[in-house]
Amino acid sequence: MNAEIINIGDEILIGQIVNTNSTWLAEKLESIGLKIRQITAISDDKSHIVEALDAAASKSNLVVITGGLGPTEDDITKQTLAEYFGTKLVENQEVLNDLKRFIEARNLTMNKLNIKQAELPESCTVVRNTIGTAAGMWFEKDETVFISMPGVPFEMKKMFEESFMPMLQSHFKTPEIVHFTVQTYGIPESNLAELIADWEKNLPRYVKLAYLPSPERLRLRLSTISTNVAETEQFMQSEYEKLRAIIGNAIYDVGDKYLHETIGDILREKNATLATAESCTGGNISRLITSVSGSSVYFKGAVVAYSNEIKMRVLGVKSETLQSFGAVSEQTVKEMAVGVMRLYETNYAISVSGIAGTNGATDGKPVGTTWIAVADKNGVRAERFVFGTQRDTNIRRASSKALDMLRKFILNFE
Amino acid sequence: MNAEIINIGDEILIGQIVNTNSTWLAEKLESIGLKIRQITAISDDKSHIVEALDAAASKSNLVVITGGLGPTEDDITKQTLAEYFGTKLVENQEVLNDLKRFIEARNLTMNKLNIKQAELPESCTVVRNTIGTAAGMWFEKDETVFISMPGVPFEMKKMFEESFMPMLQSHFKTPEIVHFTVQTYGIPESNLAELIADWEKNLPRYVKLAYLPSPERLRLRLSTISTNVAETEQFMQSEYEKLRAIIGNAIYDVGDKYLHETIGDILREKNATLATAESCTGGNISRLITSVSGSSVYFKGAVVAYSNEIKMRVLGVKSETLQSFGAVSEQTVKEMAVGVMRLYETNYAISVSGIAGTNGATDGKPVGTTWIAVADKNGVRAERFVFGTQRDTNIRRASSKALDMLRKFILNFE
Repeated sequence: MNAEIINIGDEILIGQIVNTNSTWLAEKLESIGLKIRQITAISDDKSHIVEALDAAASKSNLVVITGGLGPTEDDITKQTLAEYFGTKLVENQEVLNDLKRFIEARNLTMNKLNIKQAELPESCTVVRNTIGTAAGMWFEKDETVFISMPGVPFEMKKMFEESFMPMLQSHFKTPEIVHFTVQTYGIPESNLAELIADWEKNLPRYVKLAYLPSPERLRLRLSTISTNVAETEQFMQSEYEKLRAIIGNAIYDVGDKYLHETIGDILREKNATLATAESCTGGNISRLITSVSGSSVYFKGAVVAYSNEIKMRVLGVKSETLQSFGAVSEQTVKEMAVGVMRLYETNYAISVSGIAGTNGATDGKPVGTTWIAVADKNGVRAERFVFGTQRDTNIRRASSKALDMLRKFILNFE
Repeated sequence: MNAEIINIGDEILIGQIVNTNSTWLAEKLESIGLKIRQITAISDDKSHIVEALDAAASKSNLVVITGGLGPTEDDITKQTLAEYFGTKLVENQEVLNDLKRFIEARNLTMNKLNIKQAELPESCTVVRNTIGTAAGMWFEKDETVFISMPGVPFEMKKMFEESFMPMLQSHFKTPEIVHFTVQTYGIPESNLAELIADWEKNLPRYVKLAYLPSPERLRLRLSTISTNVAETEQFMQSEYEKLRAIIGNAIYDVGDKYLHETIGDILREKNATLATAESCTGGNISRLITSVSGSSVYFKGAVVAYSNEIKMRVLGVKSETLQSFGAVSEQTVKEMAVGVMRLYETNYAISVSGIAGTNGATDGKPVGTTWIAVADKNGVRAERFVFGTQRDTNIRRASSKALDMLRKFILNFE
């Protein structure tokens, strides 16, 4: 079963708002087994709306339309739909009553524009809106279903979840889709693809594998239509075990979590605490860890030591170390990790010192050069990396790498 | 001049990622006078890509394609484009050298998939990618220009700004659009609209005003087509002066800068230094400030004190203060600011302590309650805010508010 989403409204086309409605709808539609074929954003233009409806209807079983249902003159979706389906607008008494209640509850008075919101295409099934003035509409034509909803996100979401979603499930009787996501870190996409090529080749044709890369992680997602969810989940689990045998420790989790969330789970389970000493990452690792509610249980805090003076006075890095090896060196980063672990009295510490860019490069230390250390009471491990030339990406990559080093250090990998 | 954007990739269609590339591109294309007619997201499917290219080319002068350029088998955009334009893939020596440099700088080795990234359609103009492996492509057919870029946002943005944007400007010779952006903070959108209603009414019809709100700032952008740039800029300047007379100190800058960038300029100009003491913001303010290259001149660092123990031992907050007033209080946040200013020996300090959520609320201190202080050698000023219930938004809003308080404190406003 194919579906398409059409978003009507100028705000998306001029880059003023991000199209989060489609992201939300796509996930919901996919969860009930409707495959999104295309998402199309267009402006409030009658002939373009008709063109988009025709194109979508010719390929899909469902067309979901959002936006263009406001009371002002620029909103023409409702009139266009009435013409498209060869019907006329008639006043809907139920919707008019809803509107009166809605307006009165806000101590406002009904005006012509409000009353116009109760005029709806005669041939559609009307879906009422209790938290706004634009009603929803359901049309059917040549085996294709069309639904129209307001573009205001919270109105659209409530209307879809409470009314359209159950209506669609009962209408299309679609199969269940099962996803299984494996979270990996540390092996670049092309190398990973080579490593798992044989495994991938042996996947059944009805299972789809997607690589989803970002500086934070590389997700591998298996998807399939399922007639027996328990059986499919068991199959996914067995494929996951095969994958683990190949790329082992590069897998940090299954499901949705980021590394900083998984690190939190590991620390919580070990009843252990962490602090960070950050130079070039500027507090980004601390920010990631504390973005998780409840992180105060395992995270005591950070020292962002952006100057050598602070590295010495607050973290206890020796002046000779800085003079002999520089701020971006194995020796400095090790002393930073040990220093913050001692100061904050934690079980573990992460430290980072690097040249994020765009300036700061020296002989033998190009932009991107970064030393990272992880420590516990038994010792400290440091590693050198050369990331790229983009300051923000260097910071993100150093942060992810540091979290992954800590994960492997705590779990005694390598 | 019409343009269309086509995003290729399953991630958008299954609702896994939000299509921010299109929002960014739409704004950029609009700024050089190209009107976006349609934004279309489709999957990595050859016949569908061809169908979308045909549809877009029949109505628009420019087709901007993102995504589907990865090295793995599911990415088929490059092959499809080669077939669509009746050309073949050939190895591009320059791109191959770029790739070698890129791979070697990361201490990785070239593999077959990497090398495949250097194979490009013979008839296109190749645009090199210095921060990733997928090159950009420029095609022309029947008066329509097609450009193809990787879907990874930072690679796409760099490639578009540095290469494709100037190429498009020179190719289409679009009229000059002059923008003038005023950066404001602290007055909500609807209040601001009321305050400046008369000024807005008196703007000439050919000048467009856009309100661009976010938790970080509210931008007011004036745009107009210009035949004489110097004259238009002078006009914009005079409108800006009128606006300043109305909303004065709520304007923190003109241009593109965020508050954390403007703060950097102010500190640099005053030859002054800053440190932060952060609890609920978890290092986010420090991260923002250090996201600016060269910030080490004025920023010495931060103490993220996520536990009371660290607030006392590292920042010198008195145990009696925490016991009598709690961690989220005027007294604590003032001692944190003074403490970090003393420890880091800076001219200024920011401190934040609040309940970001989702847990941590107490009687009289709901989630969102946040105390912020700013300090210099002459004194410390603290203020209480109650933000919302969303953890991430609370952290963003507390960070922006703290930066704005520091701006007003340094500049002796209010």
